[in-house]
Amino acid sequence: MEEATISQELFTINNLWVMIAAALVFIMHLGFACVEAGFVQKKNVVNILFKNTTIPAIGLLTYALMGFNLMYPGSDYAGGWFGFAGFGIGTDEAGLTSAYTDWGGYTYWTDFIFQGMFAATCATIVSGAVAERVKLIPFLIFTTLFVAIAYPITGMWKWGGGWLNELGFHDFAGSSLVHSVGGWGALAGAMLLGPRKGKYTENGVKPIPGHSMPLATIGVFLLWFGWYGFNGGSVLSADAPTVSLVFVTTSLGAAAGAITALFTAFFMFKSYDLSMVLNGILGGLVGITAGADVITPMESIIIGGIAGIIIPFAVVFFDKLKIDDPVGATSVHLVCGVWGTLAAGIFGEGKDVVAQLTGIAAIGVFSFAFAFIVFYILKLTTGIRVPDTEEERGLDITEHEMEAYKMF
Amino acid sequence: MEEATISQELFTINNLWVMIAAALVFIMHLGFACVEAGFVQKKNVVNILFKNTTIPAIGLLTYALMGFNLMYPGSDYAGGWFGFAGFGIGTDEAGLTSAYTDWGGYTYWTDFIFQGMFAATCATIVSGAVAERVKLIPFLIFTTLFVAIAYPITGMWKWGGGWLNELGFHDFAGSSLVHSVGGWGALAGAMLLGPRKGKYTENGVKPIPGHSMPLATIGVFLLWFGWYGFNGGSVLSADAPTVSLVFVTTSLGAAAGAITALFTAFFMFKSYDLSMVLNGILGGLVGITAGADVITPMESIIIGGIAGIIIPFAVVFFDKLKIDDPVGATSVHLVCGVWGTLAAGIFGEGKDVVAQLTGIAAIGVFSFAFAFIVFYILKLTTGIRVPDTEEERGLDITEHEMEAYKMF
Amino acid sequence: MEEATISQELFTINNLWVMIAAALVFIMHLGFACVEAGFVQKKNVVNILFKNTTIPAIGLLTYALMGFNLMYPGSDYAGGWFGFAGFGIGTDEAGLTSAYTDWGGYTYWTDFIFQGMFAATCATIVSGAVAERVKLIPFLIFTTLFVAIAYPITGMWKWGGGWLNELGFHDFAGSSLVHSVGGWGALAGAMLLGPRKGKYTENGVKPIPGHSMPLATIGVFLLWFGWYGFNGGSVLSADAPTVSLVFVTTSLGAAAGAITALFTAFFMFKSYDLSMVLNGILGGLVGITAGADVITPMESIIIGGIAGIIIPFAVVFFDKLKIDDPVGATSVHLVCGVWGTLAAGIFGEGKDVVAQLTGIAAIGVFSFAFAFIVFYILKLTTGIRVPDTEEERGLDITEHEMEAYKMF
Repeated sequence: MEEATISQELFTINNLWVMIAAALVFIMHLGFACVEAGFVQKKNVVNILFKNTTIPAIGLLTYALMGFNLMYPGSDYAGGWFGFAGFGIGTDEAGLTSAYTDWGGYTYWTDFIFQGMFAATCATIVSGAVAERVKLIPFLIFTTLFVAIAYPITGMWKWGGGWLNELGFHDFAGSSLVHSVGGWGALAGAMLLGPRKGKYTENGVKPIPGHSMPLATIGVFLLWFGWYGFNGGSVLSADAPTVSLVFVTTSLGAAAGAITALFTAFFMFKSYDLSMVLNGILGGLVGITAGADVITPMESIIIGGIAGIIIPFAVVFFDKLKIDDPVGATSVHLVCGVWGTLAAGIFGEGKDVVAQLTGIAAIGVFSFAFAFIVFYILKLTTGIRVPDTEEERGLDITEHEMEAYKMF
Repeated sequence: MEEATISQELFTINNLWVMIAAALVFIMHLGFACVEAGFVQKKNVVNILFKNTTIPAIGLLTYALMGFNLMYPGSDYAGGWFGFAGFGIGTDEAGLTSAYTDWGGYTYWTDFIFQGMFAATCATIVSGAVAERVKLIPFLIFTTLFVAIAYPITGMWKWGGGWLNELGFHDFAGSSLVHSVGGWGALAGAMLLGPRKGKYTENGVKPIPGHSMPLATIGVFLLWFGWYGFNGGSVLSADAPTVSLVFVTTSLGAAAGAITALFTAFFMFKSYDLSMVLNGILGGLVGITAGADVITPMESIIIGGIAGIIIPFAVVFFDKLKIDDPVGATSVHLVCGVWGTLAAGIFGEGKDVVAQLTGIAAIGVFSFAFAFIVFYILKLTTGIRVPDTEEERGLDITEHEMEAYKMF
Repeated sequence: MEEATISQELFTINNLWVMIAAALVFIMHLGFACVEAGFVQKKNVVNILFKNTTIPAIGLLTYALMGFNLMYPGSDYAGGWFGFAGFGIGTDEAGLTSAYTDWGGYTYWTDFIFQGMFAATCATIVSGAVAERVKLIPFLIFTTLFVAIAYPITGMWKWGGGWLNELGFHDFAGSSLVHSVGGWGALAGAMLLGPRKGKYTENGVKPIPGHSMPLATIGVFLLWFGWYGFNGGSVLSADAPTVSLVFVTTSLGAAAGAITALFTAFFMFKSYDLSMVLNGILGGLVGITAGADVITPMESIIIGGIAGIIIPFAVVFFDKLKIDDPVGATSVHLVCGVWGTLAAGIFGEGKDVVAQLTGIAAIGVFSFAFAFIVFYILKLTTGIRVPDTEEERGLDITEHEMEAYKMF
């Protein structure tokens, strides 16, 4: 480690933490799998598990092939809006053993794996919103393009040193760059697919309950657990004051979201609604993500608490628009992602609301347009929705020839 | 970090480990949720998940509001029995970025989040014992008071530098301060609620099997996993010899509890009882917790092994008293918590059995009395038990208007 | 820490990482429990959970009693083929507090716990292959002998400094020493037991689907998660370039295995087979394990990708031989373990294919022979297979007098 500006010990600690954080972000993929599987009907469980198993695989491989080099084109290549450092990683021998000496924080490999784990999350967010009716292969084609191209481009605008970074836009761990990107993709997909059959009737919205609340609960806890890596690792070092502040704001944001969603849902629906508490936790986590490093613990309670209030209203709002999202992904990731990005401008010291709004809008326009166009082309060509008979029978039998459970 | 007595590197490592340990303790809440959900009947699963989801949220928020400052009143405030450093955390700017320099171990935020994760566990222990019949809102009121007031006060007696600490009482990671406190609350609740309908009949004890052994098994493994943070993080640094000893004693205690519970249950019930093995693991973990830092690996096998033998006897004992505990929380957390605290006095070098007995008794009297009084007042006012018809139909439908599973 | 050749800080970091890695390997036992439980029929779920709960307990205790000292006999005792440093660990006072000063990497306790977590995995691999028909107690006797004696002996040949190490055999984290050892045991057990009734009929192979794909999926994700400790911890330090390379190769190997298994299974079976994708991930992970530290990321995609192609062919192959393996353990752990060991010789710089083949053969002969003899003696004495009526009714009722689910 020639020219290191920090000791080998600090370098090793920082690198170790970011690697462990990557493993924690990985477990979020299991969290998503469980939440989405729990919230869909029994007849579509294998299908959603299949998606959530292949998405992180596709995400990691495409990120290695091109995503990483689109997102971090490096100083020689970076333009404000677009850059590309070439296909593949680790082609030169030096990369195998040498560490980043200019950053001092972690190795090239750690950089790749931490960012690679992030990349696949935005595609996973989409899978929940389009569940129970999307065709498998067109969806995986969408996933591949979204994670290989769209996510890294907006990611570069901020984290790769692009124009939003220059502007003073603040998005610590990705309320916008990850969650709202996924949420915009989810919105585009849900709009173009249309609602599940029987969801919106003349007599109003018909609830289609998920098949397993234990599975959904396991998923939410695993997501919360993984979020310590998602947010904590985004410090990009083990710096004690910052990482520990982030742990506190993340925890209190999630807790506040749970409690305010509980009460808001109770006043709206007159029942103690576990689904809303679970989505309140996720909303709190998404909300806290943009500013987790620049707010106080008490502010994190406010931001997470507002996210928890937003959730039930957002769910009702999308149902009003007849945009059918089986797991509430747009409410959680898009709406609370926007709220969190805004909140970082309102509460974060020295942050700029105008820059935040600019970033929200630019990322939203690009991500929604990209997803809409891809889904639209697929709709015109391969088709994106299964036939009504298949939707009726369930995708497990029609696409996978197996059932999720054999309980008899 | 002015005046630090250790290097920045060691400070960063220690802080990192205690943060990671906090995340591991967090996942214990999912462990509790799964164990308790698995051991209750299908008709009460949403209810127990609702409790186990809101309890950590309530725990973290009340600990931020007042619990932390009750438990660690600081040198200026601490009396031997009670102290309070004021409401809220992190009101001054310095707290946001500066690290504890007098301890040298970790930041103020890490201190809060690690202790905050502990706080909610004792309330979670109660929820298992009162499951399937307790009214939701009175229980959440109890939870709030127990975690905001009772847990921090006895915690201060030892960990906040109070009178038990002065006395030489040893409770490394909380066999008494966490597990027996929760266990005493569980006992008070189960006594005042009375047994589930149909549990104790003229023809003897009727087993009411849990609805999902896979869920219970997942929960126990997650608790064991989280215990590496619970015990390992209680070293409050990454000190290599101590933390690694704690990992070994914790592991062997759990393993021994599994095996002795297997054989004890076989000789008592003539079957290979998975529930008993699972509770034997938990008993071994609770038993090892008070002395994990001061015993040898071989002693940990003895302590965990005795805990595993205790479990089946304790389960039968509470059934004899007609104290109905659906998940065995009193056997695991109260009985093995007391055993573990005693064992730390018997085996731990230089430890004092009289101090251990004093601590066990004092913590027991206070925690049981507090829980009994709160539950009793609630019983007289709001009521604490659902009507028989609701118990019959199940709390999922009557309190939450939803079912845990839609398998058809 | 007298005579330490590294700073206290680096020692503490290295030790911390290996401890955390041990905890991650521990969670693999939950992963195995979930995969195996998910892939068996509902009537045998308690039985498989019972095995997977007691195996790590037996593994840790026997490793403390003798396994550790068989595997690492130390310089004074080591022969090339066999050595033993005596029964028990930590009998001398010094062991409690002093750290290894000659290795400089981690404490004696950390060494034990990391290796102890590995030991039980090979027995767990066997339990999947013999599921649904093996007698409980004979199987636990096999487990005890396999983990206490067979695993440590072949382990010593390489990791304990024995003859395979001298030969230049490379098995970084145990494609052979852990996975193929377990796989050979699985093969011996499955052969001697014979297939489940009704599996191989005159009309061909009858699929016996597992009872819960969500459970199997949870298991595979937890195994992948734990593999970051399994491979990452096998660096035996937190050395930044090596550990981060291992994280990348492990991740890309798993991802490639998922995708190639998806396509291979589609071309073979014309359906999108979730089981094959899940086993493709595991095959990729097993395949990458021997050489994870000496290959490039792009090579890891090739190695994992080939493992994913192997999986469906191996499953069909064992079915052709009428060797019935309910969870595919032999395909995943034995075949991909052999492939991974070979691949480390083909791709790993400076590695030797002949040494790899020698190691594969020697470990295979010893492990298979040991397992075959033990199972054979048990077959002749206690019997190893349950009566047909018990197999029909399911082991949960006949061996454990309980059911895994009460869903009504």
